[in-house]
Amino acid sequence: MKPLSESTVTIVGLGLMGGSLAGALVGHCRQVIGVDRDTAALTRARERGFVDQAVDDLETGVRMADIVVLATPVRSIIGLVDQVGAWMQPDALLMDLGSTKALILEAMATLPEHVQVIGGHPMCGKEISGFEAADRDLFQGRTFILSPLPRTSDEALSLAETLVMAAGAQPLVVDGTRQDYLAGTISHLPYLLACSLVGTADATTSPDPLVWQIVAGGYRDTSRVAGSDVTMMVDILMTNREHVTKAAEVCGELLAELADLVARGDEQALRERLTYIRQTRKEHYQ
Amino acid sequence: MKPLSESTVTIVGLGLMGGSLAGALVGHCRQVIGVDRDTAALTRARERGFVDQAVDDLETGVRMADIVVLATPVRSIIGLVDQVGAWMQPDALLMDLGSTKALILEAMATLPEHVQVIGGHPMCGKEISGFEAADRDLFQGRTFILSPLPRTSDEALSLAETLVMAAGAQPLVVDGTRQDYLAGTISHLPYLLACSLVGTADATTSPDPLVWQIVAGGYRDTSRVAGSDVTMMVDILMTNREHVTKAAEVCGELLAELADLVARGDEQALRERLTYIRQTRKEHYQ
Repeated sequence: MKPLSESTVTIVGLGLMGGSLAGALVGHCRQVIGVDRDTAALTRARERGFVDQAVDDLETGVRMADIVVLATPVRSIIGLVDQVGAWMQPDALLMDLGSTKALILEAMATLPEHVQVIGGHPMCGKEISGFEAADRDLFQGRTFILSPLPRTSDEALSLAETLVMAAGAQPLVVDGTRQDYLAGTISHLPYLLACSLVGTADATTSPDPLVWQIVAGGYRDTSRVAGSDVTMMVDILMTNREHVTKAAEVCGELLAELADLVARGDEQALRERLTYIRQTRKEHYQ
Repeated sequence: MKPLSESTVTIVGLGLMGGSLAGALVGHCRQVIGVDRDTAALTRARERGFVDQAVDDLETGVRMADIVVLATPVRSIIGLVDQVGAWMQPDALLMDLGSTKALILEAMATLPEHVQVIGGHPMCGKEISGFEAADRDLFQGRTFILSPLPRTSDEALSLAETLVMAAGAQPLVVDGTRQDYLAGTISHLPYLLACSLVGTADATTSPDPLVWQIVAGGYRDTSRVAGSDVTMMVDILMTNREHVTKAAEVCGELLAELADLVARGDEQALRERLTYIRQTRKEHYQ
């Protein structure tokens, strides 16, 4: 495999994540090719210097690449793997930026052996989307999960790590199933909580016009990720159903328990629980 | 009543909120007196120029004041109202900074008629606490709820509005019960959700050391207010039990509904719900 500096990297999907990765990699490789069906995004990517070349034909972009990065919603990635794999050069590397890994890795596992594969998940989502939101610095200092398959060569993992570091992120190797379990609680559950909060405000206090004048930082921050792109999130939730459902169940029980302590006025138990939780969060962020 | 510029303002409790208000008001009134049992906070407040005078005796501070602002946790405020009211000068104004209003206003309503009373709630909480976190600019541009009682004179309301604006905030008159209902959903519920999220991570993924390496902005923001001061939050929850319990119940049902759509793989219904919620949040923040 060629080193990154001599590789052509083709990024499929110039949304927030793909666009940002393209912009971060320009100058670190032989060339960055952007592929998107949206010609406006291609034009803007060229104008902003986020790609060296913009291509609207997937096959053309893939055939030119030493590294292909799929940066579309998760189920689009799953749908693209077979097609893209068939066009890839021998020993080229296929990776992705999807937020769930198990089903993507399952699809990658079926590709011909001459294609190298690895899963990727940069931990830097935003509630905004589209190429206009792309930012060369999006990955700076962030953790970038890499999920190799048993068939992934050391050389391929090493090349993926180099790419991640060139984008400014820190690679972290995590097994795909384990990453889906962790992401279910710390990434996908927060989305469902944010949505439930917005839904509650909508169902109860929203008719009062004053509510949006008094809303403060707590609501704004807790509901932020409810603004995430719906297609992206539906794909994530639908490809991590078991872990997400379980996390929501545990969380719903905890919420009901806390609310019950409030309803019963069991101050001592409430104080103990909240103190433990505050301490726990503090330790996590030390 | 004297105008603000000629008034002595005594702030009882130099934590985050009281300390910040003191610092914001210095220079806008005759003098700002800080009262706190914690002599270290008093010393620091003087050193930072956040008060003109620091007093550790409550009665002394209150007797000197034209305006007394109670800035302790909600149930301390309720406990202080009677005592402080007895020491106040005729026609002096008593206000507070508590996050729930109904029970505080109930206590204020029992004071002698020669004391003016009004409830206050600045919408700018933080998850940090104590005088060291105090910030003169905390109130800048924020909404500051004022909840008058039927007995509150126009002059007293006007003086309170002047004080709020001198601190940089925008006064908004809201009936106490209505404010507790609204705050239950948009301020106290987010706290319980943040705590439930932290509790879920603690109960499920926490034993995996990787989880805190991959945790990203969604978890951090959604859990932020779980770091709030526990005594402050227990007081808030215990004085807004009915509204908080109801909001948590509605929210728990919504979470269970969303999780059920995920579990059943009912993609169409899930997409419709999430699209509506995303749109709703967008409208609220336009």
